[in-house]
Amino acid sequence: MFAEIITIGDEILIGQVIDSNSAWIAKQLNALGIRVRQITSISDDKEHIFNAMNEARKNADLIIMTGGLGPTRDDITKRTFADYFNDELIMNDRILKGVEDYFASKGKEMLDVNKYQALVPSRSKPVQNKNGTAPATWMEDNGQVFISLPGVPYEMKAMMNDPLLKWIKQYFNTPFVYHRTVLTQGMGESRIMGLISKWEDSLEEHNIKLAYLPSPGMVRLRLSATGDNQNRITTAVDKKVKELENLIGDIIFGYGEDTLEGVVGKLLREKGKTLSTAESCTGGYIAHLITSISGSSDYFQGSIVSYSNEVKQNTLGVSSSDIETHGAVSEEVVRQMAEGARKTMRTDFAVATSGVAGPNGGSDQKPVGTVWIAVSSKSGTIAKKYTFGNNRERNIRQSALAALNMLRKEILADT
Amino acid sequence: MFAEIITIGDEILIGQVIDSNSAWIAKQLNALGIRVRQITSISDDKEHIFNAMNEARKNADLIIMTGGLGPTRDDITKRTFADYFNDELIMNDRILKGVEDYFASKGKEMLDVNKYQALVPSRSKPVQNKNGTAPATWMEDNGQVFISLPGVPYEMKAMMNDPLLKWIKQYFNTPFVYHRTVLTQGMGESRIMGLISKWEDSLEEHNIKLAYLPSPGMVRLRLSATGDNQNRITTAVDKKVKELENLIGDIIFGYGEDTLEGVVGKLLREKGKTLSTAESCTGGYIAHLITSISGSSDYFQGSIVSYSNEVKQNTLGVSSSDIETHGAVSEEVVRQMAEGARKTMRTDFAVATSGVAGPNGGSDQKPVGTVWIAVSSKSGTIAKKYTFGNNRERNIRQSALAALNMLRKEILADT
Repeated sequence: MFAEIITIGDEILIGQVIDSNSAWIAKQLNALGIRVRQITSISDDKEHIFNAMNEARKNADLIIMTGGLGPTRDDITKRTFADYFNDELIMNDRILKGVEDYFASKGKEMLDVNKYQALVPSRSKPVQNKNGTAPATWMEDNGQVFISLPGVPYEMKAMMNDPLLKWIKQYFNTPFVYHRTVLTQGMGESRIMGLISKWEDSLEEHNIKLAYLPSPGMVRLRLSATGDNQNRITTAVDKKVKELENLIGDIIFGYGEDTLEGVVGKLLREKGKTLSTAESCTGGYIAHLITSISGSSDYFQGSIVSYSNEVKQNTLGVSSSDIETHGAVSEEVVRQMAEGARKTMRTDFAVATSGVAGPNGGSDQKPVGTVWIAVSSKSGTIAKKYTFGNNRERNIRQSALAALNMLRKEILADT
Repeated sequence: MFAEIITIGDEILIGQVIDSNSAWIAKQLNALGIRVRQITSISDDKEHIFNAMNEARKNADLIIMTGGLGPTRDDITKRTFADYFNDELIMNDRILKGVEDYFASKGKEMLDVNKYQALVPSRSKPVQNKNGTAPATWMEDNGQVFISLPGVPYEMKAMMNDPLLKWIKQYFNTPFVYHRTVLTQGMGESRIMGLISKWEDSLEEHNIKLAYLPSPGMVRLRLSATGDNQNRITTAVDKKVKELENLIGDIIFGYGEDTLEGVVGKLLREKGKTLSTAESCTGGYIAHLITSISGSSDYFQGSIVSYSNEVKQNTLGVSSSDIETHGAVSEEVVRQMAEGARKTMRTDFAVATSGVAGPNGGSDQKPVGTVWIAVSSKSGTIAKKYTFGNNRERNIRQSALAALNMLRKEILADT
């Protein structure tokens, strides 16, 4: 079965706001086996809303609309919604009570304009908004369901989670959809494709679809299958993932919503090990990724971002003659950086980067994108040279992911 | 005149990827005075793509499509695009040469599948992709323009910036639009609104529109006006910006595309001063922001990310008894961190952060969101306590921006 999402409001169309609601809703519906066929962003205009609703219902059983339910004048969605179904807006006492309670709990004065928030289409099932004043509405029409929600993300999400997703599940007898996403680092889309093309051909007979989802420094491979036989589908997809692991297991670092910084953190926590970083070209970005994980202070000691040669020498103990002889972007220096961080911050592991992030600073010998990465542990220090591209932001990102993946492998190899 | 945006690819419809491309494109078109009427996300399906193109051309003169141009099998957009115009794909030698050069510059082997990237509709004007292999195509049809772009954001943006936005401007002879954006840090939207409400009222008679664009840690104020009399429009808007500076000059840190890290870097460069950071709760994010600026090695020496108390003591020289008495999140400790960084890394300025990023680790006295920030320079050390929210990511971002703004003011005050 299909759903469509319609988001209403100028802020998306003028690029002021990125539409993150739709992605969230789509993910929830997918988990219920409902495929989102189209996402449409339109402005607060009656005719346009009517047209979008008409188009959506041609192909979808469920139409979810967000935005345009605030108390201000440009929010005409609610009236339009009622008009579309030739319905009238009536005051709903239960919702009104909820709005009054909301204002009371906030200690704020309730204005007349807020009362109108409790007006709902007479034939609809309204949902109380515990985090705001605009209710959601559930409207059944010709076997199709239209849901209208406010655009404020946390209000929308709370009402979807309870009760709307449950109502959707009940109302529609949905097929089963199974996704597995395999996360890889260190190889481009085309090369992966070359390695797994035979395996990819074998997916068709099982009705499994494959999507390549590349982003700087990583490629995600998503397998999906739909049907009624839940057991058969999960078995088939899981088997194909196993086969994929045999083909390209060395570049796979995780699954689904995993991140490299999360995987590394989990490994360190499990093994009771600690980490520090010494960063030159990544400029603190690796430390930032690691500390974006809540609880990372349990295993992360710190980082020395040694942007200048002086800091490399004084704080990390890198030999000044090695810097002079080999340059800061060299195997010798990056090894000493990793070892210096590990020693200074007394950690089990340390990872270091030194490279030319660009766009300036490149030379014939060391063009922009040249990056040395080292990982130091009790079993020794390894170093590897990478060649990335010309874009500073991407080079920093790719260096950080490559460093985290090198680190991940060293932690795994550690006994 | 109207444009519509069509994004193609399952990754958006299953909620795996948030569509940030459309917001960026919409912003650029707005700056040219082109209104985006609708944004539509659909899957890689020929019939659906045809239908979306047909719908879009009913109301728009310009249709911009992104996604679905990679070398892999699930990307059928290019063939569909050619079919839609009853056109055929032909090998474009100039584009092929570019793809070959791209692989050569990367020192990577070019596969057969990459050759096909140089196939373009015969009647289209292709645009070389300098950051990847999939070209963009410009297709004129019945006075309407269809542009097809790869979905990788930085590839798409580079080709839009040069030459596609220029081609659009030429082809459609767009009206004059003048934007000025004023960037503020340190005050919420509602409070700013209260301070400038009278000034805001005065904009109407000049047909100047104002938009509040809040994001974590900053609020941008965008003034815009459209018309034929270029001189009159720019003069009026510039005058209003001057008035605004008189009202809230103390929270304005820049204009247009400025960033705090860029403004701070420019000031340091102009004054010939150097910087280091000592970061606890920001975990390297300030260093990352500073080093995201090309050439920052001229003024940035490095950062000590002291996530553990040991690193605070051993590397920054923070007194262990002060940590014990006042806790790591305290004025005493953050001052010593800034002073320690400035001394250890021998810089003119140092900025330090210590706080509870959350969601865990808060206490009654120091709830999540409590952050101490210090700036040290030859004229002394200042420290300030901030209270942010409950969200870890936002707290890190807000702390970093507040720290950079404190630093900016200290550099400005330095003589």
